[in-house]
Amino acid sequence: MQVNEVVAYIQARKDRFVADLREWLAIPSISGDPAYAGDVRRSAEWLAGHLSEQGFPTVEIWETQGHPAVYAEWPAEDPDAPAVVVYGHHDVQPVEPLEEWDTDPFKPVEKGDRLIGRGASDDKGQVFFHTLGLRAGLAASGRAAPPVTIKLLVEGEEESGSVHFADLLHAHRDRLACDAVVISDTTMWSADVPSMCTGMRGLTEAEVTLRGPSRDLHSGSFGGAVPNPLQAMAVLMSALHDADGRVTLPGFYDDVVPLTDEERDLFARLPFNEDEWLQSAGDSRAAHGEKGYTTLERIWARPTAEINGMWGGHTGPGGKTIVPHEAHAKVSFRLVAGQDPRKVQQAFEAWVEEHTPNGVEAEVRMQPGGVRPCFSPIDSPSVKAARRAMERAFGTEVLFTREGGSGPEADLADVLEAPLVFVAVGLNGDRIHATNEKVEIPLLLKGAEAAAYLWEELAVALR
Amino acid sequence: MQVNEVVAYIQARKDRFVADLREWLAIPSISGDPAYAGDVRRSAEWLAGHLSEQGFPTVEIWETQGHPAVYAEWPAEDPDAPAVVVYGHHDVQPVEPLEEWDTDPFKPVEKGDRLIGRGASDDKGQVFFHTLGLRAGLAASGRAAPPVTIKLLVEGEEESGSVHFADLLHAHRDRLACDAVVISDTTMWSADVPSMCTGMRGLTEAEVTLRGPSRDLHSGSFGGAVPNPLQAMAVLMSALHDADGRVTLPGFYDDVVPLTDEERDLFARLPFNEDEWLQSAGDSRAAHGEKGYTTLERIWARPTAEINGMWGGHTGPGGKTIVPHEAHAKVSFRLVAGQDPRKVQQAFEAWVEEHTPNGVEAEVRMQPGGVRPCFSPIDSPSVKAARRAMERAFGTEVLFTREGGSGPEADLADVLEAPLVFVAVGLNGDRIHATNEKVEIPLLLKGAEAAAYLWEELAVALR
Repeated sequence: MQVNEVVAYIQARKDRFVADLREWLAIPSISGDPAYAGDVRRSAEWLAGHLSEQGFPTVEIWETQGHPAVYAEWPAEDPDAPAVVVYGHHDVQPVEPLEEWDTDPFKPVEKGDRLIGRGASDDKGQVFFHTLGLRAGLAASGRAAPPVTIKLLVEGEEESGSVHFADLLHAHRDRLACDAVVISDTTMWSADVPSMCTGMRGLTEAEVTLRGPSRDLHSGSFGGAVPNPLQAMAVLMSALHDADGRVTLPGFYDDVVPLTDEERDLFARLPFNEDEWLQSAGDSRAAHGEKGYTTLERIWARPTAEINGMWGGHTGPGGKTIVPHEAHAKVSFRLVAGQDPRKVQQAFEAWVEEHTPNGVEAEVRMQPGGVRPCFSPIDSPSVKAARRAMERAFGTEVLFTREGGSGPEADLADVLEAPLVFVAVGLNGDRIHATNEKVEIPLLLKGAEAAAYLWEELAVALR
Repeated sequence: MQVNEVVAYIQARKDRFVADLREWLAIPSISGDPAYAGDVRRSAEWLAGHLSEQGFPTVEIWETQGHPAVYAEWPAEDPDAPAVVVYGHHDVQPVEPLEEWDTDPFKPVEKGDRLIGRGASDDKGQVFFHTLGLRAGLAASGRAAPPVTIKLLVEGEEESGSVHFADLLHAHRDRLACDAVVISDTTMWSADVPSMCTGMRGLTEAEVTLRGPSRDLHSGSFGGAVPNPLQAMAVLMSALHDADGRVTLPGFYDDVVPLTDEERDLFARLPFNEDEWLQSAGDSRAAHGEKGYTTLERIWARPTAEINGMWGGHTGPGGKTIVPHEAHAKVSFRLVAGQDPRKVQQAFEAWVEEHTPNGVEAEVRMQPGGVRPCFSPIDSPSVKAARRAMERAFGTEVLFTREGGSGPEADLADVLEAPLVFVAVGLNGDRIHATNEKVEIPLLLKGAEAAAYLWEELAVALR
C-alpha cells in the first residue's frame, strides 16, 4: 500500500465525502426525545443505504426495544483473517437552547475547515471517516476486500444511555465475534497533539438514607440528647475520604491497575495547562484530589467517591429549629481498570452499616448494575497497531489519554470478550453535547487515512 | 394568713373560676393566623374586663404593632414594697388538625378533673389562677392590697414569636419597673412531683453556604480533581462535634455557668424514665449527646450545635453524576446560662472561615439577634421564696427542672433587669400545641393557692 495513493484517494473524494456527511447530519436523529423517533430510524436507513453504496456486501438494520442500530460487514478475503468490530453511533444529542446556535443545527454549514452541525463530531463524522478510509485502503492496495473482516456496528441509542445495547450485543454475539473492537467516539488531545484514549472510568451509584426519630423533633426539647441523622450523615460522608484525598472503603484500591511509569510519562508530555483546565471546570478555584497524582491522572486513571447530592431537614427559607428525622445522600464512585462495580457496592454497603452510629438506621440503595471501567494497556498488540496507523496518518508521535466517564464501551469488551482500541479524531473543543457543535474536516480526513492503515496494522498484530 | 382560709376561699369559688375560664377559652385568640386578629383583640378585652371585675385598680390594653397585650396593676399598700411583674399570654396555638380533636377546641368541656380546650394549659389557665390566688390571699389576710405591687402583663403574641414584645417592654419600661418577674407559662414535672423551672436555653441560628465551581460539573470529566462543596460541607459539619459529643467551636463552653452538684442531685431525683422519654422523642432508638451528662442535663443545662437542614446537588429521583456547585446547611445553637448569642455567632463565623478548604468559598448568614438564655440560680432569694410558696401549696418538696427552648423570657430579664421566677402548674401531658389540649383543674387551684402565698414570701425575700 502506498501512502500517497491513500492520501490521493481521500483528497479526490473529499468534496463528495463532506456532501454525503452533510446529508446525513441534516437528519435530526435525537434519540432522547420520542418526538424524533422517526428521524432516528430515517438516520439508520440513510446510513444503511450509504454503506451499501460504499460496497459493504452485508448491510442490515438491527432492531432493538428502542431505536434501531445499523450493522455492516465486509469480510476479509482470507477466511482465517482476524475480525474487528468498529463501534460508533448515529443518534445525536438534543440541541437546546436553539437560540444559542449561530446556524441551524440540522442545516450543516461549512466555515473554512469546519463543518458545523449537530452530530458533526459526535458521532456521525467519526463513523463516516471509516468508510472513506476503508475504500482508500482497498484502492491503494488494489484488493477487493480488507485484510481483516470489518463488522461495523452503529448504535442508535448512545445519547440516551444505550439502554438496549447490551441486549443487542447478546442477541448478535455470534455475528459480532471478533478479535478487537475499534471505538470511534472519543477525542484527541488537540489537532497538533494526536492521541489515543486507552481507558474509561466505570461507575457505580448509591443512595444512602439515615433515619433517626420517627418525626422531626423540636430541637429545644430534644436537641443534644438524641442522634441527629444529618449530623450522622455529615460524619459518614466526611469519613469517605482520608486527609490525603483517598477513598477509605476497605479494599477500594486493591484491584486497581496502577499507572505504569511509561503511561505517567506520556500523560505528563501532554501540553496541559492547569489554569485553563480549572477555568473549564466551572472556574474552579483550586485543583483538589488524591495526593500523589496529577490532575490528569486523577480524572483519567484514579477512582473516586463523589457526593452528588445530599439533603434533609429544613431546606426552605428561614430557620426551623428541629432535629430532622431523616438524612439522604447520593454517592457515586468512578472506577478504573481492574475494579468491579459489584465489589465496590458490597464494600460500600458494609462500610455504611459499620459506620452508622447507634440510634440511627441506615439504608443503602445501589443503582443496579453499574458501569464497568474499560482499559487498553498501551503495550497491548492492538493499541500498538492502532498507534502505528495513527502515527502514519499524522506523521508525528501519538500520545495517550483516558476518559473520566464512559458509555457502552465496557459492554462491548465484556460481551464480545475482545480488547478495545480507541481511534478517534474529535477534539475537546468540538462542543459536543453543546451548541454550535463542529468538526475539523482535515481531522476527519486524517481519521480516514488512519483507518486506511489500521486494518493492515491490525491484521498483522492480531494474527 | 391562715392556710385554711386560702384553701376555703379557693374551694368556694372553684365553680365560678372554671365557668369564667371557660368563657375566656371560648374566644379563639390564635395569634399566628391573621383571620383571628379580631378574636385576639376580643380575648384581650375580655381579660381586661375580668381583671377590673376582680378588683385590679388599673387595667389597660397595651397596643403593639401586632396583637394587643393586657396590663393590670394592683399596688401594694406600702409604697416602698417590692414590685413584681407577672408574665403570661392570652393568645393560643392553631388547632389543626381539627378532625383529631375529640371536642370543639373552642367549646371547653369538663371531663372529671380535666378542662379540655385550646389554651386551657397554655396559657389562659395559668394566667387565670393568679387572680384567684391574689384574691384568696387578700381575703385570708384581711388586707385590701397585696404585700407587693403586682404588675400583670399578659401578652397577645407569644404563640407567633413575640415579635413585638421587646418593643413593648422598652416602651413601658418605667411602668414595668420591678424587683422580680414571675413567669407562669411552663410546666411541672408531674402532678405528684411539683417542680419549678429555673432556666431556659437560648438560641442562635446560622445558614452556611459553600461554593465551588460556578456550575454543576460532570463527575466523569472533573470528579476527583476539584473540590466538591458537599464533601467540604460534610467535613465541616462533622467537625462541629468531637468524639465526646462536645461542640468544637473555640471558647464555646468558656462562659457556661456549670451545673452545681446540688442542682444535678435534684435533677437526678426526678423520676425520669429514659425509655418513655425516648418514645416521646419520636421513638428515638438511643440517647446520644455530650459525654458526662444525663439526658435531662443535656436538654436543660448544656449547650448544643444542631444541623437543622442540609442540602445541595441532585436531590430528585434517580442518579445524576455531578460535582455540585453549592452546598448549604442550617445550623442552630442552643445556649445556656452565661452564653452570649453574639459571641457564639462570631466564633462560628470565624470557625467556618478557618475550616473551609482551599478552593471553596464560604458564606455564613447569622439570623439577627438570637435568643439569650435565661437562668435563675436555685439559691437565689426569689427562687427560694417561690419554692416555699409552692411547697406550702403542694405540701411536699418542690424539685427543679429547666426547659430546652424559650420564648420571650430572656427579654423580660434583660429589659426589666430583674430575676425570673417560674411558677407554673402545667404538665408535659397537657398536650399544649397539640390536639385535645387540657388542664388539670385541681392543679390550677393548687397554682392559685401557691400564688396566694407567693406575694408574702416574695415581699420578705425581696426587701
